[in-house]
Amino acid sequence: MRAFLLDHRPIVRRDYPDPAPASGESIVRVRLAGICGTDLELARGYMSFRGVPGHEFIGEVVGTGSRPLMGKRVVGEINAGCGRCARCREGLARHCPDRTVLGILNRDGAFAEYLRLPDENLIALPDSVTDEAGVFVEPIAAIYEIFEQTRLGRGAKIAVLGDGRLGALTAIVFRAEGYAVVLGGHHRNKLDRLAGLGLDVQLEERLEPGFDVAIDCTGVGAGLNRALALVRPRGTVILKSTAAAGAALNLAQAVVNEITIVGSRCGRFAPAIAALDAGKIDPRQLISGIFSLDEAPAALDAAGRSPNFKVLLKP
Amino acid sequence: MRAFLLDHRPIVRRDYPDPAPASGESIVRVRLAGICGTDLELARGYMSFRGVPGHEFIGEVVGTGSRPLMGKRVVGEINAGCGRCARCREGLARHCPDRTVLGILNRDGAFAEYLRLPDENLIALPDSVTDEAGVFVEPIAAIYEIFEQTRLGRGAKIAVLGDGRLGALTAIVFRAEGYAVVLGGHHRNKLDRLAGLGLDVQLEERLEPGFDVAIDCTGVGAGLNRALALVRPRGTVILKSTAAAGAALNLAQAVVNEITIVGSRCGRFAPAIAALDAGKIDPRQLISGIFSLDEAPAALDAAGRSPNFKVLLKP
Repeated sequence: MRAFLLDHRPIVRRDYPDPAPASGESIVRVRLAGICGTDLELARGYMSFRGVPGHEFIGEVVGTGSRPLMGKRVVGEINAGCGRCARCREGLARHCPDRTVLGILNRDGAFAEYLRLPDENLIALPDSVTDEAGVFVEPIAAIYEIFEQTRLGRGAKIAVLGDGRLGALTAIVFRAEGYAVVLGGHHRNKLDRLAGLGLDVQLEERLEPGFDVAIDCTGVGAGLNRALALVRPRGTVILKSTAAAGAALNLAQAVVNEITIVGSRCGRFAPAIAALDAGKIDPRQLISGIFSLDEAPAALDAAGRSPNFKVLLKP
Repeated sequence: MRAFLLDHRPIVRRDYPDPAPASGESIVRVRLAGICGTDLELARGYMSFRGVPGHEFIGEVVGTGSRPLMGKRVVGEINAGCGRCARCREGLARHCPDRTVLGILNRDGAFAEYLRLPDENLIALPDSVTDEAGVFVEPIAAIYEIFEQTRLGRGAKIAVLGDGRLGALTAIVFRAEGYAVVLGGHHRNKLDRLAGLGLDVQLEERLEPGFDVAIDCTGVGAGLNRALALVRPRGTVILKSTAAAGAALNLAQAVVNEITIVGSRCGRFAPAIAALDAGKIDPRQLISGIFSLDEAPAALDAAGRSPNFKVLLKP
């Protein structure tokens, strides 16, 4: 099959082996895949990943042992647990120590014609959710994860740091859920685009301290320092940037001000699908381009350029 | 009066001016003061502190406008708020942005014959609590603060990192409150002393990951990295070390494992006094020496040497 590969260098191959499903796994033909900041990090060497990247997708099931799944239009939770450990048994396969992760850890991903995932990871999409919206289920789920981990008062004053894909989507989700949120960023052209979507935006250096919550979507280590400086004493910082390399952090401020820092990663898909189905969120306004799989290197390049937000691949 | 002073160098002075109480403040004659890790940091230049250090004390009120306080044996909350801001009005003077802090920030401390504090900071000790136990109220309160900030299940598996004063006291308090706790440290002689108090101790490098909670009392930046590595996914790290200088931290682990990091500093005194009054905790077993104020430099030196825990000053 055709696949975009990170090997010694990024390359598109037309003769990549089709995925060989293990017992209990389905084969999904990818209809659309989204490029995420993590993919750009992987292409730069993060986690020494080798293989097919890509973990945001919508596709259709073309091979499966599960009759109800056959032919269905699906999205898929990206963590595949061992199914036997304590984490898996409590429904937290995404924290299984032996997990594979689609397009990130020991499992080829969605930047290809086909992928494989365990049957139980696949969730059929309602007809009301288009392909272009459904491809956002994974990152939206990662944002709803914040509500699962924390209890934020409805009146909380919230800052989202970072005007990239994740920051923009986070602000959209929080606004849809009824929170007052301001997004701070460094790119005037991106902020203008987001203001055009009705979001409250601000140049990041103009944000004033005193927020109840700051959500770090900057993708850089310095984002946490800035978030710590922006929240009030006893406030909360949500840390969303996995790629944050070891930064020089002075956490004395977190202790003196008794700040809680919550690391947050992947979430359950159900709340994200429900929000799309209900029309609470329309992420399609963040799409900046759709490229064919053959153009994957150019697509990654475009995904890294301002003021682009989400770039999609169509195998 | 006699006072131990951090000026350009640590020095004991016999002619230091007596404290001049502001309106609503009392004068306290210090009976005993405790040396804390923060004092050792201040002596090394932390916060560029100039003046009399010391914030753990028991004393008696010898000058006051408050009749009920006169002559009472008291301890005192160390943060003095402005009394007017939002934090002060919600009872969080310890997070007032304009606060002074006894022996730490713009207010002379307890390593002297006398100190001054607002009347409302002073709390009379029950007769059941001796001077030697009462001088521990402040650090014990800082540990009870953890229960105010977090909800820990009774069955939680807890690691305390650090075999110093704070780590030892933390393990004692958590055990007294019915938690299973193991203390990890690097000093065999300290661990032996703590094992002699009936605490479950372990060489830190022998601790195995999987704790629900890790409490970093190491006082060094590397402690947080170690705590992050020891807690299970979705676990909690309590950060108690204000003096942790900027360390190279890779917080990607906190995000991937969705760990919550809780900065924790000072606490209310009431729960600490209640625990001492009820005999749940006897911190006197941690006293390693009592020095006169004139010997303060030697006392600080002793407080920094293993296997000593708490060193007291008696003005």
